[in-house]
Amino acid sequence: MESSSRKHHVRCIVKLGGAAITFKDKLEALNRESLSRTSLQLHEAMGGGVSFNMDWSKNLEVPDPIDMELHQKHAFVVVHGAGSFGHFQASISGVNKGGLDNSLLVNAGFVATRLSVTKLNHKVIRALASQGIPAVGMPPFAAGWSTHKRIVGSSFLDVVLRIFVDAGFVPVLHGDAVRDSHQGCCILSGDVIVRRLAEELQPSYVVFLTNVPGVFDRPPSEENAVLLQEIVVYEDGTWSIARPRLEAPVKTEMASHDTTGGMATKIAEAASISRLGMDVYIVEAGTEHALQALKGNIEQNWIGTIVRKANST
Amino acid sequence: MESSSRKHHVRCIVKLGGAAITFKDKLEALNRESLSRTSLQLHEAMGGGVSFNMDWSKNLEVPDPIDMELHQKHAFVVVHGAGSFGHFQASISGVNKGGLDNSLLVNAGFVATRLSVTKLNHKVIRALASQGIPAVGMPPFAAGWSTHKRIVGSSFLDVVLRIFVDAGFVPVLHGDAVRDSHQGCCILSGDVIVRRLAEELQPSYVVFLTNVPGVFDRPPSEENAVLLQEIVVYEDGTWSIARPRLEAPVKTEMASHDTTGGMATKIAEAASISRLGMDVYIVEAGTEHALQALKGNIEQNWIGTIVRKANST
Repeated sequence: MESSSRKHHVRCIVKLGGAAITFKDKLEALNRESLSRTSLQLHEAMGGGVSFNMDWSKNLEVPDPIDMELHQKHAFVVVHGAGSFGHFQASISGVNKGGLDNSLLVNAGFVATRLSVTKLNHKVIRALASQGIPAVGMPPFAAGWSTHKRIVGSSFLDVVLRIFVDAGFVPVLHGDAVRDSHQGCCILSGDVIVRRLAEELQPSYVVFLTNVPGVFDRPPSEENAVLLQEIVVYEDGTWSIARPRLEAPVKTEMASHDTTGGMATKIAEAASISRLGMDVYIVEAGTEHALQALKGNIEQNWIGTIVRKANST
Repeated sequence: MESSSRKHHVRCIVKLGGAAITFKDKLEALNRESLSRTSLQLHEAMGGGVSFNMDWSKNLEVPDPIDMELHQKHAFVVVHGAGSFGHFQASISGVNKGGLDNSLLVNAGFVATRLSVTKLNHKVIRALASQGIPAVGMPPFAAGWSTHKRIVGSSFLDVVLRIFVDAGFVPVLHGDAVRDSHQGCCILSGDVIVRRLAEELQPSYVVFLTNVPGVFDRPPSEENAVLLQEIVVYEDGTWSIARPRLEAPVKTEMASHDTTGGMATKIAEAASISRLGMDVYIVEAGTEHALQALKGNIEQNWIGTIVRKANST
């Protein structure tokens, strides 16, 4: 890639967790309020200014050109999970286990999963666009992402994505069913996509928006669950809890229909991202703490989990 | 590309005209009945057999594995127009004239147009999947298509598309707003996409499904409009009407919000495709004539327009 095409540094990659923007227990149930609040906060974090509706599906509300100025330095990339869109379809048909080429059930499940996740993607883009964020969808499968033994292989996406960011758009990717050259197919999770993009785009920081205030030492619904405020990651990939000091080992949770792993996977993904040198914030969507994280400017009383590389400031 | 990757010959590229699957005069109005009939016919043309719902968005109707056999030789590619999804948004903001980098109106129009056309794409895929067709969306912009001076440039899509077809999927593309390296942006019409794909994939035949019985010598709503049954295309790109014999010159129509051209453009596109050596059928969606065309097996009393290369059988 020519260096001249790298005109915009990507400031932030933000992951909208499936649990934050959907109700995970009910088939294809969108959490409109959370998505709407997050879209507003994203608009503010990207620089704010006049917001006008870019969703012209109900009527053609064309804003007055006199009031309009073009800000093209959004430099955010959004990735969202599937939540209750796609997870059920994927797990009932076993898409993540492969078998695309010899099972009609998997074949149908693949199509049904994609139909569901792209439906959510459309809803997310609509929510962002209605806040004046120039969001454009990039379904990973359609953009040529594939895996080999569930590891992300080469993809054309990085180049394309860079073009989008340079054009001032905010690309919106999502967890997706993709082709796997070894097992036929698998589920590519939003978290894995975030890591892959962080490697390529080297953003200043990465934010994971969830439905709980951060990462806890046990399922947050349990009594005495403790929020892990700071996780430090070492060169060899291991990590430890820097704040607060804990005595018991960390437990994790995993919903039965969550085909892409629970909190242990999330910490591991966050750790592998922070090893690249950028801070990772895990925070509850829609809160003032989420807004601080999205701005990359967390304050003294911030509530959430920071995952950072050892020896970094 | 390795020849080994070309395992499936693409039988047919089918264009679902925007006028055939939407009501063109009303914002985002789907013609559900026409789309549903066409989906049924496509399932039959692709080989029929047991049809089961691959849209699991309402409930998780997983079919009984005992009844299921995997047929992976669909080898159809579907492209659809925008109709009343996208055309209004594009024309009111001037997306087709460019200016993405210096006009917020164009920027917003680009986002609004994409939001609308991808909404239609999702509806088309849902309709196909509910008939048991393993349809997967490929929004051209997201897949890296771009233009230079409104001419389609290099794209990664062909390789990706080939992988999809080989995997037994039916890719569904659509007219889209794309980046243009000269003027900033433009509208890439479904017809242009069909031609580009026909060059690359060399299908046995191409079908354009419209809302009228074929191409006429004047707007079909006018009295005495005559259906052009056969158009012959010569080596130099010119074309003439082989059947029936006409005396007056051919008139064409163009809807004011049709940003991608009217019937003259369609004949020119069909002619440029048939020059590649394959027959092009232009026929009314949902009719028995459409089904014959989709099967590539038209009968004596077929009603529609054939566009074919001179000297071909």
